[in-house]
Amino acid sequence: MDILSIIEHKQKKMELSKEEIEYFVNEYTQDRIPDYQASALIMAIYLNGMTKKETANLTIAMANSGDILDLSDISDIIVDKHSTGGVGDKITIILMPIIASLGIPVAKTSGRGLGFTGGTADKLEAIPGYKVDIPIKEFKQNVKEIGISLITTTSNIAPADKKIYALRDTTSCVSNIPLIASSIMSKKIALGANKIVIDVTYGSGAFMKTIPDAIKLAKEMIEIGKNTGIEVRCVLTSMEEPVGYEIGNQLEIIEAIKALQGNMEKGVYEIVCALGTQILIMAKKVNTEKEAKKLIDEAISSGKAFNKFKDLVIRQGGDVSFIENISKFKNAEYIEPIIAKKSGYIVNMKTEEIGKIACFLGAGRETKNDKIDMQAGIVLNKKINDKVKKGETLCYIHTNCKEKIEEATKRLQKAITILSLNKVQQETILKIIK
Amino acid sequence: MDILSIIEHKQKKMELSKEEIEYFVNEYTQDRIPDYQASALIMAIYLNGMTKKETANLTIAMANSGDILDLSDISDIIVDKHSTGGVGDKITIILMPIIASLGIPVAKTSGRGLGFTGGTADKLEAIPGYKVDIPIKEFKQNVKEIGISLITTTSNIAPADKKIYALRDTTSCVSNIPLIASSIMSKKIALGANKIVIDVTYGSGAFMKTIPDAIKLAKEMIEIGKNTGIEVRCVLTSMEEPVGYEIGNQLEIIEAIKALQGNMEKGVYEIVCALGTQILIMAKKVNTEKEAKKLIDEAISSGKAFNKFKDLVIRQGGDVSFIENISKFKNAEYIEPIIAKKSGYIVNMKTEEIGKIACFLGAGRETKNDKIDMQAGIVLNKKINDKVKKGETLCYIHTNCKEKIEEATKRLQKAITILSLNKVQQETILKIIK
Repeated sequence: MDILSIIEHKQKKMELSKEEIEYFVNEYTQDRIPDYQASALIMAIYLNGMTKKETANLTIAMANSGDILDLSDISDIIVDKHSTGGVGDKITIILMPIIASLGIPVAKTSGRGLGFTGGTADKLEAIPGYKVDIPIKEFKQNVKEIGISLITTTSNIAPADKKIYALRDTTSCVSNIPLIASSIMSKKIALGANKIVIDVTYGSGAFMKTIPDAIKLAKEMIEIGKNTGIEVRCVLTSMEEPVGYEIGNQLEIIEAIKALQGNMEKGVYEIVCALGTQILIMAKKVNTEKEAKKLIDEAISSGKAFNKFKDLVIRQGGDVSFIENISKFKNAEYIEPIIAKKSGYIVNMKTEEIGKIACFLGAGRETKNDKIDMQAGIVLNKKINDKVKKGETLCYIHTNCKEKIEEATKRLQKAITILSLNKVQQETILKIIK
Repeated sequence: MDILSIIEHKQKKMELSKEEIEYFVNEYTQDRIPDYQASALIMAIYLNGMTKKETANLTIAMANSGDILDLSDISDIIVDKHSTGGVGDKITIILMPIIASLGIPVAKTSGRGLGFTGGTADKLEAIPGYKVDIPIKEFKQNVKEIGISLITTTSNIAPADKKIYALRDTTSCVSNIPLIASSIMSKKIALGANKIVIDVTYGSGAFMKTIPDAIKLAKEMIEIGKNTGIEVRCVLTSMEEPVGYEIGNQLEIIEAIKALQGNMEKGVYEIVCALGTQILIMAKKVNTEKEAKKLIDEAISSGKAFNKFKDLVIRQGGDVSFIENISKFKNAEYIEPIIAKKSGYIVNMKTEEIGKIACFLGAGRETKNDKIDMQAGIVLNKKINDKVKKGETLCYIHTNCKEKIEEATKRLQKAITILSLNKVQQETILKIIK
């Protein structure tokens, strides 16, 4: 077997064999295939596509390229949750304590942010003392003893995916559905899950800008699941505006705490219920959406979910006094309101741009080595379909860099559209695909 | 301008602008674009194609990436000859002295062999003392004084093409007609020609295996010529069997000397006449094929062409006594006949394989740094449509490596097909395209 004949087969739109895909993934991960040959193959895949079988084989080969987490001693059913990314997405931090409080073990690893979307691991670090990079042994111990642990991905999970993703990123080959699907699924498989709920976001703040693309991606992942023995359910959610009101690491932790205390924004609640329902059904806790919602509501109103979150924070070294008293979180030095220049309704939010502005203010990294400013971000005061009067506050900038305020203000004014029109049709949850 | 957006445009089948193509060629030649991004773009071009305009712009950008030879002080009309490659192709060595003896200045640079096809520069070096790498100044001086010089390509002719070709070679992107056409034409433009006759070979020993592909390549090069102000004429010639009887560097020089002395194999004569006619017409020496053929025949029968070749050899430092007395060339140590195992007609020769066997015997390089054995090669005793009796000699192996004889014999037996069928239709010159 050699890489040239593999490239040639894909050029001719032939289906690559399992052995050919494994050869490519293994040799490339071990630096025995140079980048320029790998990028030629990736471009041929990008343009000529992959069959379902090829996509499944690529996924498995990438999953097997590094460590495989074995969580079978925790439970037979390991449910994982994933989001294809968005702005202000703090759902994991709210939903997982709810799920754990209902007796389903939560052993969850999350990534860090890069680009305009945040990462759960970064957000958790906004809690003073919280350690996201504890050893796997301790991670599993926590799940066994308190039913939950949230950590960051270890470096040797699907290293082939990391290498191939970096190459795609620098050769304009990111936006390809089979490649996106196999990238997501390879990591989930390596992380030991056998049931996965995926929040497939669409719209201006998501990687999938259109609903048909989001549906395609969902179906591709479900198909990979079928071919690899993993049950996958997808919830299509709108990312036409940020999730909730707060964007930025510490800001989102505060919004999550409030949510677990019962004070949840409507859209956030809908996503929590939709994803939670699928998890509870897959974990065989309930049979219907109605039963699921009842359990979720009780977990919150009883304080069980909030207490589970506090247990988690304590166990992972975090200072729980911040969770009990959010006023202990120190605000950013500058909080500047963005003022509506006219009256009307908010009809559009350029969500990716809002994510990028939050990054620019310090909430995210522009390159891998940038340091995050935990306090930086944006707090929305209005969302789509809200009525605004000229002079009212649309949102607030939180930053520690005074010199960034002017540019951020200009960009935010442009990112939020006010018109004197009727309200726009807007649904948070579009559909469930399984 | 940046390489990612250029890749993206080609992914979307958009026509790249002149500026985009120039940016890519210049930045890549100067190592400011990494190989993996270049190979992604090349693969996108390979799969999504190029328009005539893009192909012309790529050709010009590659030609301009290095030195441009200025031959305008030699003549207004600079005619060049090129072959798309084959096995046993000694046409340049026979034809160019004929042309020079007819008063048309010949300033010709030729490549070295790589893979199964030989290179004229290597063949000339089989003449003891002949220098192929003289300075350009001396090259031009020779053309002015004796009307002919044959040298090898300088290192800084179309360096972009060299780099891109090496990348195509290692990413399975060689066999693409616009890329082949622009590669050939960029070098010819940089070498200062304004009229080019191209021997476009097709068949088992050529890069273009089929006639439609050869026609496509010819038309692509003529089109590039139109877009760059150069007159291009193509002669389609069959490479279903080797050119002439001898394959290998010294062997081909000997066959060329014999040809210039009037002893020319029929197929070789046809190619010499076909290409020579187009050169003489473009150089405005004649108007018709008949007139051209008459001049060529006279050049040979009068000894003018052979004398011109001797002048060339002397001027470039070669020992002319070898030309005057070919028995001075020392044969390879082992000359082994390949015997027909049955009677019938030769109906097929795997010409690429025969070229590879010659290489294996020492006549070519497998990698750039291999040393050539000038004496090694194959001498055919029979060609397609020849009748053979069981026990007759099909061809002879010439080698200095005794241990290679067994394998070469087995491979040659397989490469030559004998059947008791009627003769096959076979034409050396298929057509002229201009």
